[in-house]
Amino acid sequence: MKATFYEGNKKLSLVDKEIEAPKEGDVRIKVAYAGVCGTDMHIYHGMMDGRVAIPLTIGHEMSGTVDAVGKEVTDYKIGDKVVVRPLDDRLAKPSDKGFNHICEELKFIGIDSPGAMQQYWNVPAFTLHKLPDTTDLKLAALVEPLSVATHDVRMSELKPNEYAVVLGGGPIGMLIALVAKEMGANVIISEVNESRITKAKEMGLEAVSPIETDLVAYVKDKTEGRLADVVFEVAGVQSTLDIMTEISGIRGRIVMVAIHGQPKPVNLFKFFWKELKLIGARVYEKEDYEKSIQLINDNKLPFSEMITGVESISKIQEVFEGIDKNPNGMKTLIDCQSV
Amino acid sequence: MKATFYEGNKKLSLVDKEIEAPKEGDVRIKVAYAGVCGTDMHIYHGMMDGRVAIPLTIGHEMSGTVDAVGKEVTDYKIGDKVVVRPLDDRLAKPSDKGFNHICEELKFIGIDSPGAMQQYWNVPAFTLHKLPDTTDLKLAALVEPLSVATHDVRMSELKPNEYAVVLGGGPIGMLIALVAKEMGANVIISEVNESRITKAKEMGLEAVSPIETDLVAYVKDKTEGRLADVVFEVAGVQSTLDIMTEISGIRGRIVMVAIHGQPKPVNLFKFFWKELKLIGARVYEKEDYEKSIQLINDNKLPFSEMITGVESISKIQEVFEGIDKNPNGMKTLIDCQSV
Ligand SMILES: NC(=O)c1ccc[n+]([C@@H]2O[C@H](COP(=O)([O-])OP(=O)(O)OC[C@H]3O[C@@H](n4cnc5c(N)ncnc54)[C@H](O)[C@@H]3O)[C@@H](O)[C@H]2O)c1
Ligand SMILES: NC(=O)c1ccc[n+]([C@@H]2O[C@H](COP(=O)([O-])OP(=O)(O)OC[C@H]3O[C@@H](n4cnc5c(N)ncnc54)[C@H](O)[C@@H]3O)[C@@H](O)[C@H]2O)c1
Ligand SMILES: [Zn+2]
Ligand SMILES: [Zn+2]
Repeated sequence: MKATFYEGNKKLSLVDKEIEAPKEGDVRIKVAYAGVCGTDMHIYHGMMDGRVAIPLTIGHEMSGTVDAVGKEVTDYKIGDKVVVRPLDDRLAKPSDKGFNHICEELKFIGIDSPGAMQQYWNVPAFTLHKLPDTTDLKLAALVEPLSVATHDVRMSELKPNEYAVVLGGGPIGMLIALVAKEMGANVIISEVNESRITKAKEMGLEAVSPIETDLVAYVKDKTEGRLADVVFEVAGVQSTLDIMTEISGIRGRIVMVAIHGQPKPVNLFKFFWKELKLIGARVYEKEDYEKSIQLINDNKLPFSEMITGVESISKIQEVFEGIDKNPNGMKTLIDCQSV
Repeated sequence: MKATFYEGNKKLSLVDKEIEAPKEGDVRIKVAYAGVCGTDMHIYHGMMDGRVAIPLTIGHEMSGTVDAVGKEVTDYKIGDKVVVRPLDDRLAKPSDKGFNHICEELKFIGIDSPGAMQQYWNVPAFTLHKLPDTTDLKLAALVEPLSVATHDVRMSELKPNEYAVVLGGGPIGMLIALVAKEMGANVIISEVNESRITKAKEMGLEAVSPIETDLVAYVKDKTEGRLADVVFEVAGVQSTLDIMTEISGIRGRIVMVAIHGQPKPVNLFKFFWKELKLIGARVYEKEDYEKSIQLINDNKLPFSEMITGVESISKIQEVFEGIDKNPNGMKTLIDCQSV
């Protein structure tokens, strides 16, 4: 079979490898599609070399079918369509209070152990979620990032008819906006990249540029002075941190999705004054995956618009180089079986 | 009657004034005790001259008895023991979503209009809460700051047996600790002032100095690695902001009680990583007052230890000067009837 490896220094290789039998408790997946995410790009850029065991097969967004099952695996059979929830929580402790998806010793599959960018992939059966037979495997490769979105929206306790503002219309922000809208909320995306604004509008979303539009006035006007009930910070820059407390109304909830590497100034006075809530959100739990699988199988949202292109696994190096050159693209999928 | 006025420039005056009849909807209170709070000290120091209409009678922490009732007031009769919830929310709008205690046009009585540091005080009847006849009026002057504490603890959703850390053992932090402990939580106060640490211990609270003790290690040890379930930030300094995200365990809730005048660096990565929540909390709602009145009437907590001294209203200037000189004191009460 073909497998890809991150070799360090912006280099990805394509190599021939033996197909391995799944160990006890494991399942071998014939990978259909693997999505490239911001974290994969981070790894490619060498930003995570301290954590990644080079050479490593990366990738944690995927879809596939069961190809073989190891001993003791009873819930899956060959041919089942599946996705992997790439969280290895086997080292969870009582001090994690049952929040195993963010347990202290969590291992992220595809970063801390081999990932999906290969033709066959052995993973523990407990990481799998079964897909309905009717699910399109291309769209199913979006289940992982979509589950970030379903988790974030669930954590926000967003209710129908509330107003949500999504700061940052990248892949994650766009999926959050789709999920929030599907729930019956009014959604506004704030995004600085014109081509992403256009993309959002093509998907039926309301999107504005905070450079051209006074976002506070815009939200105030839309909400008859109430301002936003929920804000999702998905851009990761100081200017969205500055504005998130301005556009939030009384008792507004701000979900912190973006990863801010350093401590950054936050207007805590506004938290006090308006009794705002800041809600940290990381990855997803089982129920978020189930919700996403349902949304993908229903296929009523413009998910296919999220897919910028599908490329053969044999072009792995070009794919990463291409994403690097195009900040407008949303989600590139790697077709792991076309070689 | 005697009334006091803040005259600007660290000056408080004692003057003779006519007792006024209460207007329609108002009640005249014979003020028993008025507490001096940090905000009063702020006003005294001229920090709020832009907001305060000088000369102004200040004071918003008090207890008293009904002395006369205006037209249309049916719920109160002369002699009733009462406290005032000093929030004038008559300008609340639909955009405040019913959170009238923090409505955009809220007026704070004793800052934006005349307060309690006088012998007789006319206030709208809707601001009153009746006290049981058995309530000690000295302790009842603590109902207002205690309601900040009951509100903060309620907002934290603290549960019995959880671990709470209170950063800052001033009057508010100390009351929060008492309320949290009374709820069945395990409470640790972190405080830098030795005499306040001693005071906390005298009140049966656990208190440590973060200068002498490694607070993170201490909390980790106490909780078998779980770290704090709830943190109350009641100190208002950068070092407590820095440590609040360190001592919080997975899904920990941090209540922002302190007022931070400027945006300050916050470790947002920890909010993401541990799925922490930051909960802004401001003043109190009706139910917080009811809870506080019950606690004060029950008198099972060491509330009397919170009262540093009781001084005659005729010594108003000396009282403020004395508080300024003694950072160790907790709560000074003004006896408004002894002249
Ligand atoms: N919480 C989690 O578990 C989780 C999971 C995945 C990704 N993330 C994080 O979510 C964030 C978004 O991920 P992504 O893949 O969509 O990233 P992305 O970089 O593609 O998207 C960020 C978007 O924000 C826009 N932006 C920049 N400045 C802006 C501004 N001032 N106002 C409005 N928009 C602005 C950018 O143009 C871009 O489109 C990243 O920080 C990522 O690390 C978190
Ligand atoms: N949210 C509200 O509605 C509300 C109501 C009242 C007061 N407040 C605010 O609450 C805060 C506390 O009020 P207070 O009257 O108790 O004030 P205070 O100044 O008496 O108490 C603060 C305490 O923090 C301690 N401290 C300072 N640095 C510390 C550190 N590094 N670690 C631990 N402790 C430290 C101080 O020694 C002091 O005892 C203030 O910011 C006040 O403005 C808010
Ligand atoms: Zn990802
Ligand atoms: Zn006060």
